[in-house]
Order: sequence, then C-alpha cells, then structure tokens
Amino acid sequence: MKASAISHSNIALIKYWGRQEDGGRGMNLPLNDNVSMTKEGISGGSKLMSHTTVEFSRSYEMDSMVLEGRELTGRELERVRLVVDPLRTKAGVEEHFRIGSRNDFPTAAGLASSAAGFSALAIAASSALGLDLSREELSTWARLGSGSAVRSLHGGFVYWHKGSSHETSFAEKVCQGAPFPLNAVIAIVNEGRKGVSSDVGHEHAHTSPFNSIRTELSQKEALLVRDAILDNDLRTVGSIAERNSKYMHAVMMTSDLPLYYWQGETLKVIRSVHAMRDRGLEVYFTIDAGPNVHCLCRPEDALEVQKELEGGEHVLRTIIARPAEDPHTIDEHLF
Amino acid sequence: MKASAISHSNIALIKYWGRQEDGGRGMNLPLNDNVSMTKEGISGGSKLMSHTTVEFSRSYEMDSMVLEGRELTGRELERVRLVVDPLRTKAGVEEHFRIGSRNDFPTAAGLASSAAGFSALAIAASSALGLDLSREELSTWARLGSGSAVRSLHGGFVYWHKGSSHETSFAEKVCQGAPFPLNAVIAIVNEGRKGVSSDVGHEHAHTSPFNSIRTELSQKEALLVRDAILDNDLRTVGSIAERNSKYMHAVMMTSDLPLYYWQGETLKVIRSVHAMRDRGLEVYFTIDAGPNVHCLCRPEDALEVQKELEGGEHVLRTIIARPAEDPHTIDEHLF
Repeated sequence: MKASAISHSNIALIKYWGRQEDGGRGMNLPLNDNVSMTKEGISGGSKLMSHTTVEFSRSYEMDSMVLEGRELTGRELERVRLVVDPLRTKAGVEEHFRIGSRNDFPTAAGLASSAAGFSALAIAASSALGLDLSREELSTWARLGSGSAVRSLHGGFVYWHKGSSHETSFAEKVCQGAPFPLNAVIAIVNEGRKGVSSDVGHEHAHTSPFNSIRTELSQKEALLVRDAILDNDLRTVGSIAERNSKYMHAVMMTSDLPLYYWQGETLKVIRSVHAMRDRGLEVYFTIDAGPNVHCLCRPEDALEVQKELEGGEHVLRTIIARPAEDPHTIDEHLF
Repeated sequence: MKASAISHSNIALIKYWGRQEDGGRGMNLPLNDNVSMTKEGISGGSKLMSHTTVEFSRSYEMDSMVLEGRELTGRELERVRLVVDPLRTKAGVEEHFRIGSRNDFPTAAGLASSAAGFSALAIAASSALGLDLSREELSTWARLGSGSAVRSLHGGFVYWHKGSSHETSFAEKVCQGAPFPLNAVIAIVNEGRKGVSSDVGHEHAHTSPFNSIRTELSQKEALLVRDAILDNDLRTVGSIAERNSKYMHAVMMTSDLPLYYWQGETLKVIRSVHAMRDRGLEVYFTIDAGPNVHCLCRPEDALEVQKELEGGEHVLRTIIARPAEDPHTIDEHLF
C-alpha cells in the first residue's frame, strides 16, 4: 500500500479569497467560481512541482508526515488527515500512514506550494489505497487540505465550481494548454515564508467592505475568463486577471486583519508591467497571497518579459512557466 | 490693490476622492463630506505653509503668476483664474493680476501644496480687491482652484460639506486644536513630484467597482469622525481615518487609470505603524495621493513615533505637525 505522485502548482486568473460561511473552515467552499492555470516551470531550475509518497502499513504506530525534511505536527498534520481520513475510510483501511513530500520551489511564498502538495497527496493516497476515483472527486478531497489544491488535480486551465456542498465544489478542466498558448513569467522578489498564512486570511475576507462586490464581480469574471481562454483571447484573459487580482488585494488590505502581501518590489514589478504594455508588449500581472508577481504573456514574448524583469535589481530571479500536464502517479518513491 | 496671505496645508482624515458628475470639472464638488486637520509644521524646518502675494494694477498688461520662481502658463494659470476671476468680477475690478507664491515644503508630493496655495490665493486676492467675505464663502472660491483647498480656509479641524452646488459646498470649522490634541508625524519617503496629478485621478474614481461603497462609507464616517474629534476620542478618529485612507487607495488602484501612489517605503511605514500599535503606542496612519505617510498620535507620543520612523532607512525625514491657526493676511509681500 504505497504510491507516489507528482502534481504542479497553479496560478489563479480569477482568485479564490474568502469562504462560504455555511461551508465552515473544514470545507473550503469558495465565495465565487474561480479559474487557474496549472503551471510547469520550464526555466529557472524549478518545475513548480510537488512529489509526494504515501504508504499505509501495520508497521506504523501513528500517522506521520515529513515535508521538506521537517516532521509535521499539530495543525499541519491535522490538515493532512482532513484529506487522507475520508479516503482511508472509503477504502476500509485502518493502517496508519507515513508520508513524505518535497517541493522543487519555495514553500509558502505565494507560489501555491500547498496546492501542489495536497493535490499530489490526494492522488498518491488514493492510489496507495487502491481507490479508483475520478479527477473531479479527487479534487474535492484535495480541497479539504487547501482550497486552491482543488485546481491542481488537472493540468492546463481549470475551473473550480464553488458549489454549495462538499460534492458540488470541484474542479473541472477548461482545456489543456494547446488552444490558449500562455506563459507566466514569475518575478520572484522574496522567497521567505509569508507572515500570515492565507488559511487565516480567508477567515477575515468578509470584514472588508469590498468583499461582496469582489465576490459578485469574480463570479461573472470567472465565466468571462473561461470563455476567453477557449477563444484564445489573451487581452481579455489578461486584463480581467489583472484587475481581479487587484480586487483581492484591495479586500486583503481593507479587512480587519489587514494583509499587505505587497512589498516595494511588488509595486516595482507592477510598474514594469505597465511600462512594457505601454510600449506594445502584451503582458499582464496577477499576484497571489504573497509578494511575487506572475506576468502573463504569449510564449514568444516570454524571454523579452523575462529580460525586462531581470534587468531590475528588485527581482531576485524569474521562472518561466507554461500550462502543465495532468498530475499523475510515478514509480519513484521518496522513501 | 496688493495683499499677501499665508495659509497652511491640510491632511484629510476622511478623504475627498472623485467628483460629483453634475458638478463638472470646474466645480470640484466631492462625492462625500470629508474632514481634515489644517496642519502647521513644528519640526523639520517646514511650517507646511504657503505664502502668496496678489496685486491688481493697470501697469500689468496680462495676468501672470510665479510659483516657486516658475512662471505659470496654460492650464496652471487657468486654474488660478478660476479662483480670481469671480472675485475680480464681484469687486468690479478690471485690472490684470500679478501673483507670487511660495511653499516652504515640497510641491505636488502628496503634502497638499495646492490646498495651501489656493487657500492663500483666495484670501490675498479678496483682500487686495477690498472684498469682505466670510471664510465659508472664501472657501467656495478656493475650491474652484483645488478641491482640498476649501479645507485650508480654516485652521484646526475642518468639515467640508459636499453640497450640491457652488454655494453649498463649503468648509466649516469643527474646532480649533484645543479640544483634540493631535499631532501628525509625517514620514517623507519621496520628495519628487507625483506621476499623475490628483486632478486627473479624480476623473477616474467612478471607474473603480469600489467607488460607490467608498463614497457611501465615507459619508457616514465623516460624521463619526467629526463627533469623535469633539469627544477627544483618538482611537475612533485614528482607526476610521486609517481605514478610510485605504478605501481611497483601493479605489485608486482599481480604477481604469490605475494609480499606485504607494511605494515600497510607504508599505514599510505602514508596517511600522502596525508594529508600534502592537506594542501599545497609539498611532494610526493616513496616506494622501502620494507616497508619504501621516502618522496620527498624541503630542506626547510624537517624539517616540518620530524616532521610530527615522530609525528606518526608508524614511528620508519627518515633519511633526499640529493643528494650525487660521490662515490670514500678512504685511510681508513677496514682490
């Protein structure tokens, strides 16, 4: 009863911020449908990938997990059980688990490490347990560990239906990369951990006066972006993604636990993107719950965007990413 | 027919951002009532004051004005005429004017130089013309040059009634400084000119999805802040001012001419203010249309706040300001 999987991180084009009240903490039901690109790093030495091995065995006296060489305890291990327990019950298995997981990119710096991790976890755990579940169902279990993990259960472009219950809040593939050639040039300005985790931040979204407008607009924009992806319309996808990202940060900054994920370097990259666009380069930014900036452009413009970004001293390094393949099991185990 | 006046800058506690549509450009009628402190610098070598001399004379063949040694032309001179022409007409005078004006602080860097300037202009011009107008009426004429100038026609704390016509949009004094001892420690992080003037920015406020909520909340908060000033309630004034300022910047950043007045240094000062408050110092921030930050605190805490702010390399210098006296005419002419 041992299996391993890899899964890629994702970048939201329409953001998930704040949870449905009835959904409670454990369910991670978002306030609005949202859209993302599952991303594979193709430069900078990082595939933006999580590799996770799960084993159930009578020889284990307790559940345990090692993430990046660190033994998880308390709340962190509890989050893992939120995903594994229902699968273990479904399979009628009582053995304890041992899990190992590694990311090939910085953890908790707004690059959605938890999304890749919990997605790989759901795939590896269900495989180790001998369960044959659809991607859509697996996405609902990954969601219990981290909301945005739901979207990493598919490669390419992904639509997360907010739903109103555990079963109805799942991820669906919009398309693989082909009909919409897109690159994200990620400007990394800080690789440290976030001060406030998004898990905590979500709880405060409703205290911002802008939260309900953001939610309402995002619900509409999710549909617009999905259509524009299928129409290969970068201008629409990019301009909506850019403003949707700002709506989220406006909510974050004005909640009663004000969250300032931006840094000075973030603002400099924003200005660079405007400057590039002003001189005709079609590039748009989006920023997750962290200081780093994803710059969305056509693959043929990615090197120029990269060069421009790396010209600034405020950018530590960049990673170019493209739509990733579907996550899947692999034979290579971490232990 | 020559007179001079001094007037101080002001810092909004409830912001003016965006104009009533029917008011048109020339009228500067705000979307919501707003509140400010007219401020006198008491450290840092700047009183945050404008000194303006106006003379009408047959010897002048055209209207002219020198601001900070620079001869104004075009749109800038037009704005001056918007204030002076109605006063000249009211006085039945046909002579051209010559005006000189100087600020003792950086121009157009979010320290409301235009507010002090147009307020001093209204006072000096009306005095030179021999008009005896109330402060409230004078405030309406200053408003035509720059919206926020309306508030500098009084010292202390000031309430700008948004009104719905030229006559009904005027400034009223809430109180002089005494009942509410307040200092603003201004963290100057950049002394350069703004990229986009607030005059242009106002025109785009309505394109932000958050504009109407900001307006509605600000209208309520203006009344709350006025009452809290009279109650000497710093916690209420400070916390409302701080969030109201963030509402304005959220609108600015999400309008279709996105305005990012914040810089990295601005974010660092925001974090300093949170850190100071976390350890029990009662201090709140507010940010106008520029990168500099006003930190509001009790006079007895101002030196500690100043020390903390100046400890950061990102702060160029600070100015401590207190509620200013009323603006008034003076005998000293600039030419």
